[in-house]
Amino acid sequence: MKVNGKSYRTVWMEGNIVRMIDQLRLPHEFKIHECKTYLETADAIKNMTIRGAPAIGATACYGMAQAVSAGVSIDVAERELGATRPTAHDLFDAIGFFRKRYNGSNAAAVASSYADASVERCRKIGEFGQRLIKDGMRVLTHCNAGWLACVDYGTATAPMYVAHEKGRKFFVWVDETRPRLQGAKLTAWELSQCGIDHAVIADNAAGYFMRRREVDIVIVGADRIAANGDVANKIGTYEKAVLAKESGIHFYVAAPASTFDLEARTGSDIPIEERGGDEVAFIEGVRITPEGSKARNPAFDITPAKYVTGIITEEGILNPWEKPASLV
Amino acid sequence: MKVNGKSYRTVWMEGNIVRMIDQLRLPHEFKIHECKTYLETADAIKNMTIRGAPAIGATACYGMAQAVSAGVSIDVAERELGATRPTAHDLFDAIGFFRKRYNGSNAAAVASSYADASVERCRKIGEFGQRLIKDGMRVLTHCNAGWLACVDYGTATAPMYVAHEKGRKFFVWVDETRPRLQGAKLTAWELSQCGIDHAVIADNAAGYFMRRREVDIVIVGADRIAANGDVANKIGTYEKAVLAKESGIHFYVAAPASTFDLEARTGSDIPIEERGGDEVAFIEGVRITPEGSKARNPAFDITPAKYVTGIITEEGILNPWEKPASLV
Repeated sequence: MKVNGKSYRTVWMEGNIVRMIDQLRLPHEFKIHECKTYLETADAIKNMTIRGAPAIGATACYGMAQAVSAGVSIDVAERELGATRPTAHDLFDAIGFFRKRYNGSNAAAVASSYADASVERCRKIGEFGQRLIKDGMRVLTHCNAGWLACVDYGTATAPMYVAHEKGRKFFVWVDETRPRLQGAKLTAWELSQCGIDHAVIADNAAGYFMRRREVDIVIVGADRIAANGDVANKIGTYEKAVLAKESGIHFYVAAPASTFDLEARTGSDIPIEERGGDEVAFIEGVRITPEGSKARNPAFDITPAKYVTGIITEEGILNPWEKPASLV
Repeated sequence: MKVNGKSYRTVWMEGNIVRMIDQLRLPHEFKIHECKTYLETADAIKNMTIRGAPAIGATACYGMAQAVSAGVSIDVAERELGATRPTAHDLFDAIGFFRKRYNGSNAAAVASSYADASVERCRKIGEFGQRLIKDGMRVLTHCNAGWLACVDYGTATAPMYVAHEKGRKFFVWVDETRPRLQGAKLTAWELSQCGIDHAVIADNAAGYFMRRREVDIVIVGADRIAANGDVANKIGTYEKAVLAKESGIHFYVAAPASTFDLEARTGSDIPIEERGGDEVAFIEGVRITPEGSKARNPAFDITPAKYVTGIITEEGILNPWEKPASLV
């Protein structure tokens, strides 16, 4: 995607240096973060300089390449990089991909091919999904399942970017997505860079605009999809799905086939990470709650398949009870 | 209610000075704001040093008393005070109450009797509503319909305070209530002062806890109630009501009979104030969205009567299709 008119991916490798867009500084500062060693790359995943399941996967793969090129044993590299965000499924996929293909001399090429394949998957999600976005439509999205969360294109945003490339005019409602505000900070920034008309709203206002028929379609990403089509995604996704159904608005999930975890029979088999309460109690370093008040902070929720209209994958748009052909 | 062990009302008058808890400084600083003239009192309403429909009403009534005691004509006082928050229904009720009862010499007594009656209404809401809160229950509330929004007790919180006085143990989920964070800042502060166990959550997480059956009842306030039982309240209330219904959780609205506007046939007759986008784009003075991104900020929404289990008033708990006996 383009930033100030220049093409970027979210993460890439030059020589033995891994470079990435520093997502902790967005939307106010656009800065490229450099990791000279695989340990610095691991740190960048850990401290969320880069985030989003596909982006984490590609970064870990580059980190593996960096490590083995510097003479670090592949097992040590796997241990360090695998411990950065233990719940991100793509992380292990990516490390497995590297181990399977690395032959002692092709480290950078393996990592690049992982990133390229990730871009291609997202582009295909965009191609399949763009048909859903017609001229004049108002799309709502939650959190950032954008190109910053991937290597390029994004998942939920890919249909928007491809529709935009095709010259279609539409509008995007961006849920700010408390507590970490990825919608307000990252999705809004991406759409601004791309010149797509949008407005940020408090998460509380999504239902209001749906009920007023000012939302035509909802498209979100997914962190994991169970065998029965239940979807784990950013906290608040379930709320938007229920509200969309209540107003008869189609609710789509966009995710590569690798997001399906067929070992999870239903959503209840997917563990939900609860993060520290300070993400709720503090905003931009300022405490908003009284000293004595607790805060609870589940990071994800489960949207049962019955609320999902379809799942946009690189293999086509599936009904929520279908599985990608490549997995069956 | 008690603050650091000492009893306070939200607003009161001493001599010709109107004093109020400065709500712009909570939860970090407890300070009494003084208004020496009725114009300062009008300003305090306008800049939201005090907010919440019943509290605004009582403050305006004190302002009227302050004005006429200082020789200001009652019409001028009404014009100034009536222009502070043009959508708050109680403001006009309170000014009308004052005009009807003021006989040229009883200004302070009239204003005090308005505030006392407001407290009594909230206390009765608490008495009727407390039966709904049983030992061990988990109550969810949205925004601040607490004693800070009233003169004492609050509306949505009144049943909690009375149940607490009766020694019942229960837990309260506090929606932070973006964009203005009245839940995180004010409701959490009230509950802390009172020693009621609670946790603040992102608005996005309410549905998650409902679906996990960790919420037993929802109680919210109301800004206006239409003749058919549709409820206007803080943005996000509609979302919580739909989600509660989806999980089979009772959803109660607590409000004095004066909140009913029988001239509004349904919720669509109630105008919804849209406030500036900066309340969304900035938090605590820090911009969270990119410079070029718009933000939309509807302040209220309409919850159709079909989602409402009952309306807790000072005349008893009504079905949403019933009207308070005093109004019919």
